[in-house]
Amino acid sequence: MARTWTLEALVEGIRGGDRRALAQAITLVENADPLAYELIRELYPETGRAYTIGVTGPPGVGKSSLISALVRGVRAAGTSVGVVSVDPSSPFTKGALLGDRIRLADHFLDPEVFIRSMGTRGHLGGLAEATLQAALVLDAAGKELLFLETVGAGQSEVEVITIADTVLLVLMPGSGDSIQALKAGIMEIPDVIAVNKRDHPAAKTMVNEVRSILGLDTERDWRPPIVLTEAVTGVGIAELWEELEGHRRHLEESGSLAERRARNLAGEVFAVASARAKARLEEAVAEDEELRRLLGEVQRRELDPLTAVREIMEKVFHLRDGDGDGPDTR
Amino acid sequence: MARTWTLEALVEGIRGGDRRALAQAITLVENADPLAYELIRELYPETGRAYTIGVTGPPGVGKSSLISALVRGVRAAGTSVGVVSVDPSSPFTKGALLGDRIRLADHFLDPEVFIRSMGTRGHLGGLAEATLQAALVLDAAGKELLFLETVGAGQSEVEVITIADTVLLVLMPGSGDSIQALKAGIMEIPDVIAVNKRDHPAAKTMVNEVRSILGLDTERDWRPPIVLTEAVTGVGIAELWEELEGHRRHLEESGSLAERRARNLAGEVFAVASARAKARLEEAVAEDEELRRLLGEVQRRELDPLTAVREIMEKVFHLRDGDGDGPDTR
Repeated sequence: MARTWTLEALVEGIRGGDRRALAQAITLVENADPLAYELIRELYPETGRAYTIGVTGPPGVGKSSLISALVRGVRAAGTSVGVVSVDPSSPFTKGALLGDRIRLADHFLDPEVFIRSMGTRGHLGGLAEATLQAALVLDAAGKELLFLETVGAGQSEVEVITIADTVLLVLMPGSGDSIQALKAGIMEIPDVIAVNKRDHPAAKTMVNEVRSILGLDTERDWRPPIVLTEAVTGVGIAELWEELEGHRRHLEESGSLAERRARNLAGEVFAVASARAKARLEEAVAEDEELRRLLGEVQRRELDPLTAVREIMEKVFHLRDGDGDGPDTR
Repeated sequence: MARTWTLEALVEGIRGGDRRALAQAITLVENADPLAYELIRELYPETGRAYTIGVTGPPGVGKSSLISALVRGVRAAGTSVGVVSVDPSSPFTKGALLGDRIRLADHFLDPEVFIRSMGTRGHLGGLAEATLQAALVLDAAGKELLFLETVGAGQSEVEVITIADTVLLVLMPGSGDSIQALKAGIMEIPDVIAVNKRDHPAAKTMVNEVRSILGLDTERDWRPPIVLTEAVTGVGIAELWEELEGHRRHLEESGSLAERRARNLAGEVFAVASARAKARLEEAVAEDEELRRLLGEVQRRELDPLTAVREIMEKVFHLRDGDGDGPDTR
């Protein structure tokens, strides 16, 4: 019983917070449907009201459970919420409702909560573009608070939550690799850290480790708080929410929220453009006979790889070496 | 006492395995000097003889120490070795010779071992390009075995070792995040795994965990061996080397080495082109008034971000929407 939505019906539905319109809009985003582009263009002037919390961390630390627990508290205060998960290992993404102790299902029945996981295989602008669009749609639909869930700490994951006003990193006892990455300066310092599974004997040791690493950074005017949580029992959730709110107040009172948002938007535009350039390249190399021939020459050691790169850049992007001096003005 | 190298002198020096020529060549690579490009073009037909082992893993697990221990064994057999580290947290990179129990210094004094760490900030083609070039230079210089050390498991790190014939993942007890990432299918399965610090009580548990995760993958014809090592005492190093050699034999005997190298080279060319496109974009956005004005409009909600992306793509890469149908033929 697929209903065909017109742009007008979608825009109207989203403005009214209609769940089916929202669901349809995010499906369009996922499929990189041209209608999604029209929709965002139409709704964009109405966005910028939602507050966005990016939730990141390695797989299996309980990010979704924490979000669920936070949503419960937020809903009790009457705030409307949107959740977008782009974490392929997340219970949201897996639709693992049955048996999940946090009862994600409760939220699915709440009309003021919209939860959506996204697959974005083959999306030209990658995860960054899909997430940005989904967040804008939820923002336009009047959701006051957005959670964006993403996995890991690599570059592409970070780009997904570039748009977040507050970044929450979730760890658990055993997250030694993340601790080392923070220590080595390879992982960026988040705004708030939750160490989940606080009943674990090593949880407090981990908090101390994280604290001593953060203590080395004396340059930031915001010192990231570290909260011990237990999503399943709800312990520490109120405190975690306090700290997230505290970061928001800090941004608002210091006047840096507007600045951060401007920077985030620019970063997001850059990430989307960069993902599109990469996708374009992939497509060209896969489809173009001449480019495949170039690769063959490289493989036979008849042409060196960097000359091949130059030829590809010129053919796909019309860029020649030395274009680095400024934008091409041909 | 900087000596100015001509292209001819460099080529000759590298062919002869001259250490100063090698050092100079890799400095040129690091600085993205145009001479590096000329050099690679000249030397490329002579490359393809070295066997390359990529060594990856989270920071602090002892990748450099393991490489050092492996190099000692390999040198005893008379093989010449090159090591390139692009891991900012590596002792190689930090030049942490004094006090390092593995005595990296021993290798620095051995004329048949060339060790070099690379910084590549601002390199147009990114880490992938710099690593590829450095590996080609060492290959042309007659090094029979190359180790490429890189940190983490994100996309950009993986691109660095795309060129490796064999990928070794190093973990340690406490690498819970990496285990979860392997389990969730977020981290790619390597060819050989070392669990370093075998004297740790949790080391064997970790080996069992990794083994059970790898057991789920029944599609590959190569089952990655897992070796318990202790780089500091040398325990397990001979066995690790056996397994690395075993993977090489597997590739050679199954006839898949040539195929893998062809695929790796294509992947490397793509990674370099992609990094260059991204750098070009960064530069354009930073320098071009019109593009900065576009971003300002997005920030003031006057222009939606995706239209801004389209305009940027057109201005920087001369790409219009719909170019996805095939290479631009204007």
